[in-house]
Amino acid sequence: MGPGPANVHPLVREALSAPVLGHLDPKFIAIMDEVSEMLRQVFRTQNQATIPISGTGSAGMEASLCNIIEPGDNVVVGINGYFGERISDMVSRYGGNVIRAEGLWGQPLDPAVVKAALDRVPTVKLLAVVHAETSTGVLQPLPELIALAHERDALFLADCVTSLGGTEVNVDGWGIDVAYSGTQKCLGAPPGLSPITFGDRAVAAVRGRKTKVPNWYLDLTSLLNYWEGQDGKRAYHHTAPISMIYALHQALAVILAEGLEIRHERHRNNSLALHAGLEALGLNLVVAPQYRAYPLTTVYIPDGVADTAVRSALLNDYDIEIGAGLGPFAGKAWRIGLMGHTSAAKNIFAFLGALESVLVAQGYQAEHGAGIAAAEHSLEAASAG
Amino acid sequence: MGPGPANVHPLVREALSAPVLGHLDPKFIAIMDEVSEMLRQVFRTQNQATIPISGTGSAGMEASLCNIIEPGDNVVVGINGYFGERISDMVSRYGGNVIRAEGLWGQPLDPAVVKAALDRVPTVKLLAVVHAETSTGVLQPLPELIALAHERDALFLADCVTSLGGTEVNVDGWGIDVAYSGTQKCLGAPPGLSPITFGDRAVAAVRGRKTKVPNWYLDLTSLLNYWEGQDGKRAYHHTAPISMIYALHQALAVILAEGLEIRHERHRNNSLALHAGLEALGLNLVVAPQYRAYPLTTVYIPDGVADTAVRSALLNDYDIEIGAGLGPFAGKAWRIGLMGHTSAAKNIFAFLGALESVLVAQGYQAEHGAGIAAAEHSLEAASAG
Repeated sequence: MGPGPANVHPLVREALSAPVLGHLDPKFIAIMDEVSEMLRQVFRTQNQATIPISGTGSAGMEASLCNIIEPGDNVVVGINGYFGERISDMVSRYGGNVIRAEGLWGQPLDPAVVKAALDRVPTVKLLAVVHAETSTGVLQPLPELIALAHERDALFLADCVTSLGGTEVNVDGWGIDVAYSGTQKCLGAPPGLSPITFGDRAVAAVRGRKTKVPNWYLDLTSLLNYWEGQDGKRAYHHTAPISMIYALHQALAVILAEGLEIRHERHRNNSLALHAGLEALGLNLVVAPQYRAYPLTTVYIPDGVADTAVRSALLNDYDIEIGAGLGPFAGKAWRIGLMGHTSAAKNIFAFLGALESVLVAQGYQAEHGAGIAAAEHSLEAASAG
Repeated sequence: MGPGPANVHPLVREALSAPVLGHLDPKFIAIMDEVSEMLRQVFRTQNQATIPISGTGSAGMEASLCNIIEPGDNVVVGINGYFGERISDMVSRYGGNVIRAEGLWGQPLDPAVVKAALDRVPTVKLLAVVHAETSTGVLQPLPELIALAHERDALFLADCVTSLGGTEVNVDGWGIDVAYSGTQKCLGAPPGLSPITFGDRAVAAVRGRKTKVPNWYLDLTSLLNYWEGQDGKRAYHHTAPISMIYALHQALAVILAEGLEIRHERHRNNSLALHAGLEALGLNLVVAPQYRAYPLTTVYIPDGVADTAVRSALLNDYDIEIGAGLGPFAGKAWRIGLMGHTSAAKNIFAFLGALESVLVAQGYQAEHGAGIAAAEHSLEAASAG
């Protein structure tokens, strides 16, 4: 129940241990094709260029940026959390000129601030924004920002590491040009792969580069020659991480069997129950209700309670991991994930019960059982509605 | 029995499916420490900077190069196969000036040619050489080349993707400054990780860079802050591919339980048996006996035999994968791997029997059972010796 990796569905763990096929075996190629096709459904896109990158979420972030950015390009980066900062670090490593559109941690970006950043330079190559900030638990509404980017003829990139598979991501419907995610959060597989999707305009930008992509492993053109082929032939690039592809294949099948809408609703209802439980224990949530990313909840640590002692007790005595705060929230907030297979009522009850015990042991005052009762009530209301 | 991925040991497949711990969980940190320690034993090094990169072998190649090379650096690359070319491609993407020390495919590099290349420029940052060329089956003797590099005060990098775990790699004894491998060959795990080791001089070169590493995901300093920690604290970098780390952990335990010398001898004896069998069937090996990389055998396709038809028949009728030739060997040679768990007498017999049947079906003349008999004889001689 930390910010990821989440627990992995038993079928996915089983898929991991299947015998390893060759990376050019026709049976494995068929699995690759199915993975791309299922990823398109989850991303809600027709983009041909939809593949998993052979690295964890940050490799998807880097693949998205290194293929698009050329030295001197202006890139507006929305920065209201840790992962916006990471994007900005990567952009500068690739010679891009970072224009910071800043917001407060725990709040969404203000479209007016983003517009002002876009207007600060004559041309903008890319506007990059984190959809669900794993460091703050904020879900950024995207359509308005996408419109701003497109008005300036800029590409729009969305970091969907914590959103995809847990909350609506509509790549084609919203007009996202580049998106990436990670397998270890709401997609329900172990960490190790990073699904990406590039729309036509983004692919055209890659193909129209004046300079070679300064990253061999993540060079999109070579990756697509392996994943999609060219003139009916697939060109070997690197050896795909076969077992991880099996895991993603199975995880996507689990997602589509559940149904995207139902899955999103499950994440929503369980998180609302968690929120109700935390508040019934007297804790305060960091993010305003309308901007909460359901897969990840941030909650303030109550006064007089020792951050590390609580997290250690939860881990050691209850086998429950929650995440520490990052940046300005270090020592001030916890991050509680309800992602993929972890988003389940039994986990919420186990966590609220354990948290109450640990807090009370630290001298915190809470009404016995109030958290679980509120969570139960919230779940009943959701299922009745 | 292709050039990798090789078959995975059953214990390793089992380890893959263990529940996914958090990447900062103390129990997982302990596993990371054990992985580094076991990697040091397999690389035969005391290098503190010994970790698995979160990507396949080519990511290890890229991590080694992007951290060392700064724009304008002179880099001598030994090129006598496909992977030497890949190194040279990467070096140029990082702004390095490639000086090619070329050799013929299927033959080792000539030290005189390497020396001449080193002498072509006033200073050399790095000499990069492939230890076992997966495209040709050549094992490059390294000590003489390492001495040449160090005479010129250059770092020495060895690509050990196909050698590590299958044949002697002595990082400290030979004086290799940077080495990398892949998990899917002689290490006996699935593809997905790339063990690397950096010696003190190489780490000093990284710490003394004038420019930021133009690759966030593979930035060694950040990776070491996570893997080794700094001032007793570990800094989060990216989410480690937990399940793959479990697999590598188990694979290394299997290797060390077998014993490195015994494991190398197994690879050697099994390959000699394969060679004897192929020659008894009338086929010709590509590489001269003293330069053969035992984990990977290259053999010429006999005249009048259809490359693809043979490989397809082996795969479809016998469940045996062998590799196609690359570069000048495309359509002219096959690549047969005996790596890790795949290096076993039963696989040699199954392959030689299947190959004979498939060749004879194509009108090729071979003495019935001669291949298997020769392989058996070779194995008996090895076990008697």
